[in-house]
Amino acid sequence: MTERVVLAYSGGLDTSVCIGWIAEATGAEVIAVAVDVGQGGEDLDVIRKRALACGAADAEVVDARDEFAQEYCVPAVKANALYMDQYPLVSALSRPVIVKHLVATAEKHNAGIVAHGCTGKGNDQVRFEAGISSLAPGLKCIAPVRDYAMTRDKAIAFAEAKGLPIATTKKSPYSIDQNVFGRAVETGFLEDIWNGPVEDVYEYTRNPAEPREADEVVITFEQGVPVALDGVAVTPLQAVQQLNQRAGAQGVGRLDMVEDRLVGIKSREVYEAPGAIALITAHRELEAVTVERELARFKRQVQQRWTELVYDGLWFSPLKQALDGFIDEANKYVSGDIRMTLHGGRAVVTGRKSAQSLYDFNLATYDTGDTFDQSMAKGFIEIFGLSTKIAAQRSLRAQDGAAAQ
Amino acid sequence: MTERVVLAYSGGLDTSVCIGWIAEATGAEVIAVAVDVGQGGEDLDVIRKRALACGAADAEVVDARDEFAQEYCVPAVKANALYMDQYPLVSALSRPVIVKHLVATAEKHNAGIVAHGCTGKGNDQVRFEAGISSLAPGLKCIAPVRDYAMTRDKAIAFAEAKGLPIATTKKSPYSIDQNVFGRAVETGFLEDIWNGPVEDVYEYTRNPAEPREADEVVITFEQGVPVALDGVAVTPLQAVQQLNQRAGAQGVGRLDMVEDRLVGIKSREVYEAPGAIALITAHRELEAVTVERELARFKRQVQQRWTELVYDGLWFSPLKQALDGFIDEANKYVSGDIRMTLHGGRAVVTGRKSAQSLYDFNLATYDTGDTFDQSMAKGFIEIFGLSTKIAAQRSLRAQDGAAAQ
Amino acid sequence: MTERVVLAYSGGLDTSVCIGWIAEATGAEVIAVAVDVGQGGEDLDVIRKRALACGAADAEVVDARDEFAQEYCVPAVKANALYMDQYPLVSALSRPVIVKHLVATAEKHNAGIVAHGCTGKGNDQVRFEAGISSLAPGLKCIAPVRDYAMTRDKAIAFAEAKGLPIATTKKSPYSIDQNVFGRAVETGFLEDIWNGPVEDVYEYTRNPAEPREADEVVITFEQGVPVALDGVAVTPLQAVQQLNQRAGAQGVGRLDMVEDRLVGIKSREVYEAPGAIALITAHRELEAVTVERELARFKRQVQQRWTELVYDGLWFSPLKQALDGFIDEANKYVSGDIRMTLHGGRAVVTGRKSAQSLYDFNLATYDTGDTFDQSMAKGFIEIFGLSTKIAAQRSLRAQDGAAAQ
Amino acid sequence: MTERVVLAYSGGLDTSVCIGWIAEATGAEVIAVAVDVGQGGEDLDVIRKRALACGAADAEVVDARDEFAQEYCVPAVKANALYMDQYPLVSALSRPVIVKHLVATAEKHNAGIVAHGCTGKGNDQVRFEAGISSLAPGLKCIAPVRDYAMTRDKAIAFAEAKGLPIATTKKSPYSIDQNVFGRAVETGFLEDIWNGPVEDVYEYTRNPAEPREADEVVITFEQGVPVALDGVAVTPLQAVQQLNQRAGAQGVGRLDMVEDRLVGIKSREVYEAPGAIALITAHRELEAVTVERELARFKRQVQQRWTELVYDGLWFSPLKQALDGFIDEANKYVSGDIRMTLHGGRAVVTGRKSAQSLYDFNLATYDTGDTFDQSMAKGFIEIFGLSTKIAAQRSLRAQDGAAAQ
Repeated sequence: MTERVVLAYSGGLDTSVCIGWIAEATGAEVIAVAVDVGQGGEDLDVIRKRALACGAADAEVVDARDEFAQEYCVPAVKANALYMDQYPLVSALSRPVIVKHLVATAEKHNAGIVAHGCTGKGNDQVRFEAGISSLAPGLKCIAPVRDYAMTRDKAIAFAEAKGLPIATTKKSPYSIDQNVFGRAVETGFLEDIWNGPVEDVYEYTRNPAEPREADEVVITFEQGVPVALDGVAVTPLQAVQQLNQRAGAQGVGRLDMVEDRLVGIKSREVYEAPGAIALITAHRELEAVTVERELARFKRQVQQRWTELVYDGLWFSPLKQALDGFIDEANKYVSGDIRMTLHGGRAVVTGRKSAQSLYDFNLATYDTGDTFDQSMAKGFIEIFGLSTKIAAQRSLRAQDGAAAQ
Repeated sequence: MTERVVLAYSGGLDTSVCIGWIAEATGAEVIAVAVDVGQGGEDLDVIRKRALACGAADAEVVDARDEFAQEYCVPAVKANALYMDQYPLVSALSRPVIVKHLVATAEKHNAGIVAHGCTGKGNDQVRFEAGISSLAPGLKCIAPVRDYAMTRDKAIAFAEAKGLPIATTKKSPYSIDQNVFGRAVETGFLEDIWNGPVEDVYEYTRNPAEPREADEVVITFEQGVPVALDGVAVTPLQAVQQLNQRAGAQGVGRLDMVEDRLVGIKSREVYEAPGAIALITAHRELEAVTVERELARFKRQVQQRWTELVYDGLWFSPLKQALDGFIDEANKYVSGDIRMTLHGGRAVVTGRKSAQSLYDFNLATYDTGDTFDQSMAKGFIEIFGLSTKIAAQRSLRAQDGAAAQ
Repeated sequence: MTERVVLAYSGGLDTSVCIGWIAEATGAEVIAVAVDVGQGGEDLDVIRKRALACGAADAEVVDARDEFAQEYCVPAVKANALYMDQYPLVSALSRPVIVKHLVATAEKHNAGIVAHGCTGKGNDQVRFEAGISSLAPGLKCIAPVRDYAMTRDKAIAFAEAKGLPIATTKKSPYSIDQNVFGRAVETGFLEDIWNGPVEDVYEYTRNPAEPREADEVVITFEQGVPVALDGVAVTPLQAVQQLNQRAGAQGVGRLDMVEDRLVGIKSREVYEAPGAIALITAHRELEAVTVERELARFKRQVQQRWTELVYDGLWFSPLKQALDGFIDEANKYVSGDIRMTLHGGRAVVTGRKSAQSLYDFNLATYDTGDTFDQSMAKGFIEIFGLSTKIAAQRSLRAQDGAAAQ
Repeated sequence: MTERVVLAYSGGLDTSVCIGWIAEATGAEVIAVAVDVGQGGEDLDVIRKRALACGAADAEVVDARDEFAQEYCVPAVKANALYMDQYPLVSALSRPVIVKHLVATAEKHNAGIVAHGCTGKGNDQVRFEAGISSLAPGLKCIAPVRDYAMTRDKAIAFAEAKGLPIATTKKSPYSIDQNVFGRAVETGFLEDIWNGPVEDVYEYTRNPAEPREADEVVITFEQGVPVALDGVAVTPLQAVQQLNQRAGAQGVGRLDMVEDRLVGIKSREVYEAPGAIALITAHRELEAVTVERELARFKRQVQQRWTELVYDGLWFSPLKQALDGFIDEANKYVSGDIRMTLHGGRAVVTGRKSAQSLYDFNLATYDTGDTFDQSMAKGFIEIFGLSTKIAAQRSLRAQDGAAAQ
């Protein structure tokens, strides 16, 4: 039987050329799979037909938008996942859901190889290949750009020689990856880290400096999951989409950072993630109201590790699953409303309301009704500070000893 | 000899009354100490004379502003210290420097007791008392408000009965603590956490929503310490003061949060810290450029613990000193320039430049000059993902085993 | 209605006196509850009758041994819980199960107060009171020894004056707490930390230095829970009991340490925990075989925090529950056999066998059958070490720069 | 100029063959370097002459034993470095000191390449190559066994064909790496993890089960560094050597474990490290006496990361240096005496004495002289447990709410 290769297909030049390139390089049949994670752009059926026109033995398209939002974006919100305190893992979240469908297609078609269009210096190759080996350790992975030296110029020449139905114009200056949770932009002039981004790198967000009316939104969470906007029930996908619109219109969610890649280098990245940033900001504040202090303190370590793992492509790893066990438990009471003002590039919390609140007005108030027993404090401080006090006595002793010599 | 009590004196009603109250309660002489940490307001000499007029046996004033900025605020910048990811520890940083001067005064005057004006339900009582017991474990601490039931009403009555030279008007609705690193506001209507703050709670910052021209600043750091603004050398104190002005004028640094107090309750706090937020934002980005990935990842844990410790009043603890050993080493190469736009409540980094940069254009670029050896990636991914892959094989085995039963 | 106090009753002098002492101090009726956690000694019914004879309004006894082993000791094994790398939390584990029954009794009898016999300088008072306030925040706690100055001498005088049916001989030099998971001993001469323990402080273990035949045992775990010894199915309680016998006979599980108490002081403690140490040693090695590396590395942090929390009396805290979420997930595949030699005070693993093993002979072997692709290593090392290498280039640059000046 | 290769030379068959093999494969001159880290065996000068006889252009030998003990083993003691709670990093510690001398030799001889004899599936290749790229990022690394397929059989054939002055008998069943800090053994029959080790795998330790007299030793530390044994001053090297003898004679320090290698596989390892285990056991207990609780708790995380980093070959990484900053500060007061009994395979602490002790008899004692103020405890517990209590009230509310529906 002819070997089969399942290819992660985007519809663009590179992966369109991959179809024939892989067939020539390996003698295998290529099955193209395009997964919709909310990246927008062309109709899925157009993409499917193009794959076939480019020589694919078969082509499948999957609308994974709801699955992506529910099973990948929502856990990121529950983890307040911001890599290097900023980046909400946009691309890193989409790779595992794409991997899942690549593996399912490979099983269905009895394919032994999965191919993707990544280069050899980014994070995504790791996310694809580590993900695939976690779900289907028997599958092999190939990356024509990296493994078969399929450069851009060669791809254009190949497309023209074969008459592939795909535009081979000079590459846009921007290298873009986008999905419903956000958008990543790299481009030559931003490789000089002293250069600021220009306005036309952005698509999901409007210029925050332009004057406009503020927008106010109330986001309702149940156990850490966004379930309503302004009191109207939404799915997770709708929550992200609507907040992309509303927060994006106010310039919320632009990020410009130097980032530590898994492959050991630092790279300059510009992101837009209006919905993600609005949701995480709101979720974090609702946690401040509903999560007990020591749990909140330790959760910071857990979510840092969760974020690193997902960034590093280990979504399906045993550690990720165990961290999820912690995070789900920690979100058990994260239910309630957060009111935010979206304006001028900022998503600012202005109110919190929760039946699960741990904020106790009667303990907190300095006014009438105070129930806090202040007489307890003296004993607390004495014992809370005792080990430090004993260490201080020792230091004085040591200094006296040194002085006496 | 008459016992002596050193009192942390602010010049306000509460601590003015404390002078006589302590004298009556304990029979001791009271020595008032006022420490200038950049809180602004009255002249120190006026405060000193008021203390004497209120019955202090002696009164001292200390200008600790440079010391505070250099030895307390700068370490917080190096630690990117944001409690609960937001609060730059404004009050928590000022307590230890005040403690240091209280202890020095107690030694000078042979006093055996230190007194402060804190209540029994806040963090500051812990910061004072744990700090004092760490520097001078032999000193005792008293807090008249907490220990001798000196309520506001009783204080006013006392001041009027004794004819103290201090206004006894009804308390302002705002309870405020401020210093050069920021300003904290608590007030009755904010104790309802659904209420948003109103414009008149703010003093260090202007309304970010008002249209105005953006400001651009270049902050230069050497080993994590801010040393110049726009190329002009500044002391740490000047850096904070000037950025308070410039970032404050753009509405940068307003914070509104529900906070986990050390004494076990959640409280609503509103802060303004324009200079602090600008400095930490810039420092964090310069670290992204100059600190190696694994060091940066572990430093997040270290700075979280540092921040908790300082918030919790353990500035002088052995753990704090050891964490400083780590943080100083981690800042060894954090030198260079960060360019920021201050506007509309946001401090946005737009450029980074450093002779110590780890960002390598030739490794990062996708253009001509790329020196990254992509052929290494395949081996990396294979081995990086191997332990997860082996675990995946085990999971499949376990599923097959379960299915076979 | 007369107020009721539920007293944690041991049957000894102190808590026997507490019955009447509390009644006198508070005017309340006292209901005594004795919980069997495998401490051995007197028959529960004898204890129950003594409580009544000492004036209790009612007395209940609970055999909580299986519950204690399953719900408290087993989680400690799954967490490899060794406080300060040594102490398997013997007393710290028993307090929450006792608390649970105290609270249940208080609810049943409509009591508003719970009493215990702890002093004011140990950990157990915290474990009782924090535990009670977590299960029943409305209950009050009292500790006659601490709160009503019920010293030993006064207790003896009280017992004699009232003619209580309890021996009032001079206190044993040893202060002991024991349950099925181990035994804790404190005594005057051990308060000099230069003194070694003498043989007669031990009861659960024989002298490891005495020559005897070694014992070999195979412990079988399922998902981290001990389920069989030498192939014979056992309950968790039986596993601990039988290993107490067998490991204790070989002198395994003696501990002598200086320990950091929650109340801020260091104390000298001697423990015996033969079954606990054998089980944790075996479990830890089975994890080495069945848990993926990154999960194992992070689990160390989780179990350290778990151990501190339980030591500190926060068994019922939200953080403990979330950590359990992680630990249970991490134990999902911890199933298999560990063979150990018990001898000379040591429990030494000599063999491991698991259907869930991640140890892969064909990857590990240097002999025929090796399936590890060594050519992958070069790429791995290059990229694994890249961020450090770039940092090294920077350091050399910095040195050259310094040298050039 | 002819390229030069510096080869890490052991004097054994593999690296002796490497000399000619590398010369043939690369056309370069080979300079052999043998570093004495206390591995024992042949005289260094004999080894040097053999290298020349095997065709080395030059050969150097370095006695690095004191340097190794002081700068590599002592930091491991200060870090209580036990990988997976057991393995004192024996081989992992020796690689960086060897690397340092390889790099120095390469600089001296203007060599551009460094070679080592490791295979492609172990940790040591990473330790060599990551170490070299950290000290001299411009050097290249080659590993003939891995990169040029130099199998054992080919090596023997090569040696015989060239008449190299080295025995080519069949390989010993044991693969061994040893230095003054310990000894590692791998062998075919131990690759079955159900097999226990046999007595003849051990050389540094005698059978712990044999009856013999116990040995007692007092180890004195200054700031974490061992400085005297039984009151006689020793260098770190002497401390390790003498404790190897004394603890080894009692069977202390045998380890048998399944270990997570950096390259993603689990391997079975048997180690002996009598001196290392005795020193770390003593150091850890002295820390229990002299290090404040919160510092001790956080140090566990720091030392775990330190240990992983060193195991993973990142001795010269920026993170390692920053962790050392923490660890050195934490050891500032770790001075004093530890008395241990060495017997029957166990190193048991029986006494501690320190001028820097934080153990305070008067706080700890239950006898006369107690200075602990127990009345403080009630307030401490109330506030320490408050956040958990508030969370408990919320849980009850949630349960009531659920019950009411």
